[in-house]
Amino acid sequence: MDLLLLSNSRAPGQEFLAHALDEIDDFLGANRRLTFVPYASSDHDGYTAVMAAALAARGITVVGVHTVADPRQEAARAEAVFVGGGNSFRLLKALYATGLLETIGDRVRAGELRYLGASAGSNMAAPTLRTTNDMPIVSPPSFETFGFVPFQINPHYLDPAPASTHMGETREERILEFLEENDVPVLGLREGAWLRVDGAVARLGGVNGARLFGRGSEPAELVPGEDASHLLSTTPRYDLTG
Amino acid sequence: MDLLLLSNSRAPGQEFLAHALDEIDDFLGANRRLTFVPYASSDHDGYTAVMAAALAARGITVVGVHTVADPRQEAARAEAVFVGGGNSFRLLKALYATGLLETIGDRVRAGELRYLGASAGSNMAAPTLRTTNDMPIVSPPSFETFGFVPFQINPHYLDPAPASTHMGETREERILEFLEENDVPVLGLREGAWLRVDGAVARLGGVNGARLFGRGSEPAELVPGEDASHLLSTTPRYDLTG
Repeated sequence: MDLLLLSNSRAPGQEFLAHALDEIDDFLGANRRLTFVPYASSDHDGYTAVMAAALAARGITVVGVHTVADPRQEAARAEAVFVGGGNSFRLLKALYATGLLETIGDRVRAGELRYLGASAGSNMAAPTLRTTNDMPIVSPPSFETFGFVPFQINPHYLDPAPASTHMGETREERILEFLEENDVPVLGLREGAWLRVDGAVARLGGVNGARLFGRGSEPAELVPGEDASHLLSTTPRYDLTG
Repeated sequence: MDLLLLSNSRAPGQEFLAHALDEIDDFLGANRRLTFVPYASSDHDGYTAVMAAALAARGITVVGVHTVADPRQEAARAEAVFVGGGNSFRLLKALYATGLLETIGDRVRAGELRYLGASAGSNMAAPTLRTTNDMPIVSPPSFETFGFVPFQINPHYLDPAPASTHMGETREERILEFLEENDVPVLGLREGAWLRVDGAVARLGGVNGARLFGRGSEPAELVPGEDASHLLSTTPRYDLTG
């Protein structure tokens, strides 16, 4: 299985995907054709154009999966897929409706398809949607996602702001709430960070690092370049309180 | 139908519920027994104790619905119910599991039971969970909530912070995303604000006001004391894009 899971696709003051272009280039290897899944956005054509423009300089051709007659057929012959960010609930609903959850899922698990995700697309690589930051604007038939990794991912992980007077929960508080109900590690990828998985090896890349949360343990810091392969042998346990 | 829907139960620098005690007192009238639904929290006893302590000075007795043998029977004889804040997904899952969604819903709609909500409890008064701010830590069987009002509520509404470098969505952006998929007004209740509904009359109370979002229209400001009754005759349309 080959995965590249980005926290974010746009970094402050930089062009779309610029912060991760070298890594994407390396991840794709000789293959220069990328199938793009834009369903997390409401503007499929616009989003695909932005993606195509960002990758053109590297000689990478982007095909919007929504532009072909049969998205499942496109996914069945693709060598690499990029699932873009936006709203995770909208994305997951579309993955079920199109059948891509099954086609992409089966082929990535079989090692036939490289999987790139950003933000909502990275959320999909976990077993469930439960650690998304997004608003549930539509209702997917289930919260179950691809499950390429056996732990949860929280993209755009944001450290608590000590000066805030807002009484809403911090990201850490939200994740601890998740851990009240589930015994599953949560990898909070800060903006600029990514996780790359190559078979049994997982490694943190990019900048800013990640914060790893576990039920009943203190949060731990992961620094850029750190090996995170031990997370791939996690046994997740959901719905502890029934 | 009698509703009091608070944005938040704790205001900065104040005791739990202190900012809304006069309004709650008035809303309950002669009835001094309040049935409390603590399911949005993981600590039912602790949360009920905090609620009881906050209301004791007004001579209000609080009964945790989780402490009785049959929560539905308790809800069937209550005169007023308070659904507390916490995680909306956890709350809704419990409302389905206990059958309280039906019992409380039917009796409030029949005008037999006064409904008080704070934060997640206020979210429940809308037709769906779709404008909650919470993380989907558990999966309720459906996003359908009580639907006492025909529009959506966003509690803890937070204005955009212009200085932020975080690339995640602002609250306004999230609500506009909701409006891409649904044609339903969203009332963003700022902290300190509440909505009181008495039959066909809805009025904004508390401090800080609210921001009203509609599909295809500019957001509008509602000031404290403003009549919002027109919202009660909204016809909500969900899932525009299928």
